[in-house]
Amino acid sequence: MKDTYKKNLIKTIKKILGEENILYSEDAIYAYSTDSTNIINPDEKADIIAFPTTKEQVSEIMKYAYKNSIAVVARAAGTSVCGACLPKKGGIILDFSRMNKIIEINKDNLICKVEPGVVIEDLKKAVEKLDLFYPPDPSNLKVSMIGGSIGLSSGGPHTFKYGSTKDYIIDLEIVTSDGRIMHTGSSCSKDVTGYNMTQLFVGSEGTLGIVTQATIRLIPKPEAKRIMLAYFDNLENTSTTVNDIISNLITPSVIDLMDKNTLKTIESFYPSGLLTDKEAALLIEIDGFKENLDKQYEQIIEICKKNNSAYIQTAKTKEEEDKIWISRRSSFGATAKLAPNVVTEDVVVPRENIVKLVKGIWEICNKYELKTCIMGHIGDGNIHPNIALDLRNEKEYNNFIKAKAELFELALSLNGRLSGEHGIGCEKSYFIEKALDKENLNYMKQIKELFDPKNILNPGKIF
Amino acid sequence: MKDTYKKNLIKTIKKILGEENILYSEDAIYAYSTDSTNIINPDEKADIIAFPTTKEQVSEIMKYAYKNSIAVVARAAGTSVCGACLPKKGGIILDFSRMNKIIEINKDNLICKVEPGVVIEDLKKAVEKLDLFYPPDPSNLKVSMIGGSIGLSSGGPHTFKYGSTKDYIIDLEIVTSDGRIMHTGSSCSKDVTGYNMTQLFVGSEGTLGIVTQATIRLIPKPEAKRIMLAYFDNLENTSTTVNDIISNLITPSVIDLMDKNTLKTIESFYPSGLLTDKEAALLIEIDGFKENLDKQYEQIIEICKKNNSAYIQTAKTKEEEDKIWISRRSSFGATAKLAPNVVTEDVVVPRENIVKLVKGIWEICNKYELKTCIMGHIGDGNIHPNIALDLRNEKEYNNFIKAKAELFELALSLNGRLSGEHGIGCEKSYFIEKALDKENLNYMKQIKELFDPKNILNPGKIF
Repeated sequence: MKDTYKKNLIKTIKKILGEENILYSEDAIYAYSTDSTNIINPDEKADIIAFPTTKEQVSEIMKYAYKNSIAVVARAAGTSVCGACLPKKGGIILDFSRMNKIIEINKDNLICKVEPGVVIEDLKKAVEKLDLFYPPDPSNLKVSMIGGSIGLSSGGPHTFKYGSTKDYIIDLEIVTSDGRIMHTGSSCSKDVTGYNMTQLFVGSEGTLGIVTQATIRLIPKPEAKRIMLAYFDNLENTSTTVNDIISNLITPSVIDLMDKNTLKTIESFYPSGLLTDKEAALLIEIDGFKENLDKQYEQIIEICKKNNSAYIQTAKTKEEEDKIWISRRSSFGATAKLAPNVVTEDVVVPRENIVKLVKGIWEICNKYELKTCIMGHIGDGNIHPNIALDLRNEKEYNNFIKAKAELFELALSLNGRLSGEHGIGCEKSYFIEKALDKENLNYMKQIKELFDPKNILNPGKIF
Repeated sequence: MKDTYKKNLIKTIKKILGEENILYSEDAIYAYSTDSTNIINPDEKADIIAFPTTKEQVSEIMKYAYKNSIAVVARAAGTSVCGACLPKKGGIILDFSRMNKIIEINKDNLICKVEPGVVIEDLKKAVEKLDLFYPPDPSNLKVSMIGGSIGLSSGGPHTFKYGSTKDYIIDLEIVTSDGRIMHTGSSCSKDVTGYNMTQLFVGSEGTLGIVTQATIRLIPKPEAKRIMLAYFDNLENTSTTVNDIISNLITPSVIDLMDKNTLKTIESFYPSGLLTDKEAALLIEIDGFKENLDKQYEQIIEICKKNNSAYIQTAKTKEEEDKIWISRRSSFGATAKLAPNVVTEDVVVPRENIVKLVKGIWEICNKYELKTCIMGHIGDGNIHPNIALDLRNEKEYNNFIKAKAELFELALSLNGRLSGEHGIGCEKSYFIEKALDKENLNYMKQIKELFDPKNILNPGKIF
């Protein structure tokens, strides 16, 4: 039975895509049974990996999958850290890396149209050549793709000033669970013609439909930027510094936090002169017109000093700027050197509770003896603990599981949420009932049933 | 039968709200049978006007309405120009003007919580006192209320730089059609915990649920602004000017268009020195830090000159600035002096098609002999023709109906949409099938059925 199913599946997909656009060897199936989440469950693997190149192919595949109730997981670069790409129920993985065309960049309309496999950094560079700006910048933007970032509504450091992926998607071409093709919006960024269906799909993790094209709003590129790193001997002062900057009407383009462990860990593995005896540092970037930045820069330095900043590292040259960014971007890589695995968590709270959140995470991780480097987008109240551990070590693994549950409880107790920018996937879905309003969750489930009555679209994700 | 129904209805609502919070006299019913849309249909009137003051009262009313299949229209200030507040199927009008509390403004979290009856200008002023900014500014903001602007996702001149209502709503307290109370989001502006249900309700015109509280994201207030009016002898030059401003990396806070008829009409009734012999004018506002505006201002003047601007009226004092804004804001009032009625239309196209849209509207209105003043938010491709006519004059009325249909056809033929910021209501619903993707519309209808199975929430609107 299973054999006939698989034989027919491979035959059908091969007919639709050609031999060169499918994979079903044991190695391939194994490679695709995980993403960046550090989980491999040998019982949960796909039956075939398909590389569509047109929406019509996706439609044909979905028609077959629908008719035969076969699970389908849309996958972009597989950089999810919440298990959003895992094939929980076998079936087909649609790998969108071969649908990677930038179809159009239209400067007059301030929009572009892209396929889901476009690498985010490639898109950012392409529009910047035309003096335009696509702000979302998830940390893995050199490999991660637009399709994945739409699925998770990815953010990044620049979200504080510029918003996340959801704020830039104005139209999606969707293949429905039964293979119909539709558009959810338009090329007009201001549009109230019917319900906002586009935003229902953004952040839905491929559970409602398959994205085959996106129309993205762009903005003019900021002419210049300046960056600094301000160290503090206590955490409270980082939070009051952020409040004071905003009170001075300044909206930094980035305002990120690194805790002591993060600073120490980066400096041990990638020495770049970071101070390792301070409790925390703020990375602050401002952008805009060149000649307008100096005064703001000076003002921020004053504010940091007023809040007892222990040391302020300014950047006068491009090299000094790059050095600060390279340090900041090394936090994950450096943490990865502490143990065989790193798990990146993602919780968000209203900013007034940020100190309680960070201190609470320190406590939890101490209690469970977990090496943890905390960094995050303090402006948004969005914190990422990077936890270094050996997942094969049963004690460490069990401690991690307990710590994770306490982390989520902590975030919820501070009026926060389970995820600011990484999504729920299968890694946090067991907590969703606690996190969401019951009636609201009930409607979400009914919407899922409406769009995916056979539960074939990325099953086992979100709820 | 009708009598018993009405007697029971009044008795029940009176019991829930008290005599002082209901209206059902013939005068009141007549007054509430219309909004700012210029339509009164004597057969379509409500049975009772209810003024709830708590969400629990709204819940009780909805439970009764659901059980007895009674239509319910949520109404804020009644400034809709698309018939969004009209009681097409009788029943209850929930007037939210007595739920008008600003519950909280939290500067650290950059959010506020408000009831739906808060007047938009009051909210803007309240947050500005704390150096915060709520950008949406629909033209009737002195009377229109947050609840209505959520229903229609209202915009305004500042949308080009700052986005519309949808970009600021992060959580809604909703009473469902059967009286349950739920929250759709959280107090975290960055949040991907489940589907984006908040945006499903924003712009849904009260057809999916009743908003009883909103959490709104705020931003730091721009310190200063500067404004100018640039006149052009031909329309094409206004469009190239906008493109050139953006190419120079400048994002004006406002970039509005007024056509010759608008300039002439304003000047006839509210003389303020507007030039009346030019084809069009651009109102351009920039904002930001005080000392940063001069260079941009000069740059924009240069760009206007390069694009053959016939005359540029700069503003050096607050009085000169106010004068420009007062002229601009008089466009509706001035048009209203041309005939007994003014109908404000609202279409949107990708900006590259703006000249074709405006010229097309001129043609249509000439063909049907309709006095039309065109203004709009050219940066967003969003145009409002203000049509002055006597709706009682059968010929004028019939011409208007034909012109309206041609206007919508024109917008759609230019890849545009039926509404940028006013909504669909009952005035444009007859065109929705042509405007939307069929599959998408089909899903919208199914979502409507999911949230409102008895079709009691603002029936006859959108579709």
